[in-house]
Amino acid sequence: MADLLIRNIRPMGGEPADILIRDGRIAEMGVGLEAEGVPVEEGRGHLVIPGLVDAHTHLDKTTWDMDWHANDQVKTLRGRIDYEREQRLEIGIDPARQSMRHALGLIANGATLIRSHVDIDTRHGLAMFEGVAATREALRDHVEIEIVAFPQSGMMERKGTVELLDEALTQGAEVVGGIDPCGFERDPKGALDAIFGLAQKHGKPIDIHLHERGELGAFSMELIFERTRALGMQGKVGISHAFALGAPDWLRTQALIDEIAALDIPIFTTGAPSAEVPAIMRLKEAGIRMGGGCDGIRDTWGPWGLPDMLHRAEVIGMRNGLRCDFELEHALHICSGGAAQAMGRDDYRIETGGAGDLTLLQGQTLSHALVQRLPRPLVVKAGRVTARDGTVIGKDMP
Amino acid sequence: MADLLIRNIRPMGGEPADILIRDGRIAEMGVGLEAEGVPVEEGRGHLVIPGLVDAHTHLDKTTWDMDWHANDQVKTLRGRIDYEREQRLEIGIDPARQSMRHALGLIANGATLIRSHVDIDTRHGLAMFEGVAATREALRDHVEIEIVAFPQSGMMERKGTVELLDEALTQGAEVVGGIDPCGFERDPKGALDAIFGLAQKHGKPIDIHLHERGELGAFSMELIFERTRALGMQGKVGISHAFALGAPDWLRTQALIDEIAALDIPIFTTGAPSAEVPAIMRLKEAGIRMGGGCDGIRDTWGPWGLPDMLHRAEVIGMRNGLRCDFELEHALHICSGGAAQAMGRDDYRIETGGAGDLTLLQGQTLSHALVQRLPRPLVVKAGRVTARDGTVIGKDMP
Repeated sequence: MADLLIRNIRPMGGEPADILIRDGRIAEMGVGLEAEGVPVEEGRGHLVIPGLVDAHTHLDKTTWDMDWHANDQVKTLRGRIDYEREQRLEIGIDPARQSMRHALGLIANGATLIRSHVDIDTRHGLAMFEGVAATREALRDHVEIEIVAFPQSGMMERKGTVELLDEALTQGAEVVGGIDPCGFERDPKGALDAIFGLAQKHGKPIDIHLHERGELGAFSMELIFERTRALGMQGKVGISHAFALGAPDWLRTQALIDEIAALDIPIFTTGAPSAEVPAIMRLKEAGIRMGGGCDGIRDTWGPWGLPDMLHRAEVIGMRNGLRCDFELEHALHICSGGAAQAMGRDDYRIETGGAGDLTLLQGQTLSHALVQRLPRPLVVKAGRVTARDGTVIGKDMP
Repeated sequence: MADLLIRNIRPMGGEPADILIRDGRIAEMGVGLEAEGVPVEEGRGHLVIPGLVDAHTHLDKTTWDMDWHANDQVKTLRGRIDYEREQRLEIGIDPARQSMRHALGLIANGATLIRSHVDIDTRHGLAMFEGVAATREALRDHVEIEIVAFPQSGMMERKGTVELLDEALTQGAEVVGGIDPCGFERDPKGALDAIFGLAQKHGKPIDIHLHERGELGAFSMELIFERTRALGMQGKVGISHAFALGAPDWLRTQALIDEIAALDIPIFTTGAPSAEVPAIMRLKEAGIRMGGGCDGIRDTWGPWGLPDMLHRAEVIGMRNGLRCDFELEHALHICSGGAAQAMGRDDYRIETGGAGDLTLLQGQTLSHALVQRLPRPLVVKAGRVTARDGTVIGKDMP
């Protein structure tokens, strides 16, 4: 927590102002602010938004900055998962080193808050959790990393996985993860009862990967709705991907959307260009909290992606067919303040009392800044400067 | 047409070699080549592919390097077309200046060949054609620009448009364009008879924008097939976008694909992430020629896009769900040699006798180069160096 005065910046693209951060929070906003003894940064008229947020990524998976990983893999979800579980050791994806590289890339490009799913399975035990937890600790002054204990290889067929998740949650994982209860786990009741059981035991929220499409995804959602309501977990259960909401049957998806809104279930999207993604403007209309995420980047699943939430806002924007400025601003919002809200933090706002987590952007307007994607002039976490012009301050790439 | 010796480059990502260009064509390939009096470039082990090709763009539309154009427009195709027709003058999209900026961006990023649709309508006459033709002439040593005389505002309702297209073709437009015969023209027989009539009169090929989806697009395609066959124009009629090929009914689309293959109709795709695009790997299987294009970039239609065919190969690759290296190489191919083939040029090959149009890429492999998207070390058009490390040689931005 630090003090900082940033002069001449444009909050959310508006008129130039100064922002004074004290003890890591926005203490004052106005023109011509003075604060004796407080470090000063010149904002040079750049735009400022709440810190960029990656609300759905996998810090333990990337091959970023390693040799190119040539891929000739099969295309089923299970095939990719099995392949990755072995390739991790084969090509040496060290979870501490790689999560550090991935997170530093995100920070350099303006991120101040990250939710990372981290694989936990009986082949590797807690190795990935420990690696990412080490990065979380090493970067605690730069970025807040929230770890989802994620059973990527499934819990139902691989006995012992639930116990490992339980242990990770005991050791400090913040969120209970899960994966397709039908399509992957093959036992929706068993899988969801286990997930909600862990959440109840540890008093922690849930974030479930749901790649299932159409009616299968809708069925899994209904099972999630039932448990959320029965356990009074409104607002605490999130769904990632939620491809079933991209199905073409408008009436069917509207019924799901209405239920999601009623149960305050946040939706996390990566805007996957080859999948049936939820329409972000439709979910906005319904008042649903949403967060964007870059998902895995350059890993054994696939080659695409950058550790840059403006790039992800572009992917989400293009996938959603957004053209107008107010739409682009919403794409940016779900990769910034909106994503923080979806993660349960309501203080990502450029206003007095808001978090001192800020990212400066270059552009005439917010949309222009999104589309140009120029280096971020300044990134601030709780009043500390963490990156400048695309370079992280105080940490080197391992 | 020039001579050039490039040392130590990796043709299509293979083993290092030298390439000698004489009179604008590849004269010799091998290790340790010497050629007295011929300029030498050091390739420093970079990859080399045939020049990048933008096979579907709109050089006359971009606001690139102008003030940000805020957009609150309606979302129908007709609404966007009407809006643009007036905004061109309102915000001053000078076709000569803007096409120069757009083309210079493409060259800087490795393009050596461009097909640009250019709006021709009764509101602006041949102004856009003349502007882009001026750029074509000014850049003739840097890039080959092929102009499609394109009735963006339709021919059927706006009397006099066919005559303007006729005049543009007389003045040197290389290709006859067209737009949705049903969805936009509202008179498929009238529109297609006019398009094919112009093509027959001028002995020039056709490239029709087909945004129509599902059965409507299939119907328009059938009308195009009938005329192509009746007039013996196999190989001379192309379809851009072809969203109907992305419809989910596999049997229906396969029948269309089979017909397209039989009539040798090249398909041009932009990989639009929010539309039903043709699957490039499926069309490859069917032996159909394909070209990629960046479409309009940062124009009154929408904010997205860059003048960079590696960016477009990424958009196409992500939209098509490509993950494996051989798939990524195909995405790159349809933005390079494959696009040239789709435009009727078969000499975009790194082999003796091939065009001396080359682009160097940075990466361990072709897929790695595509994904990294680093500045192009060298771009060569007919043996002349046109760009180096992302900067055009011999032409400044207007």
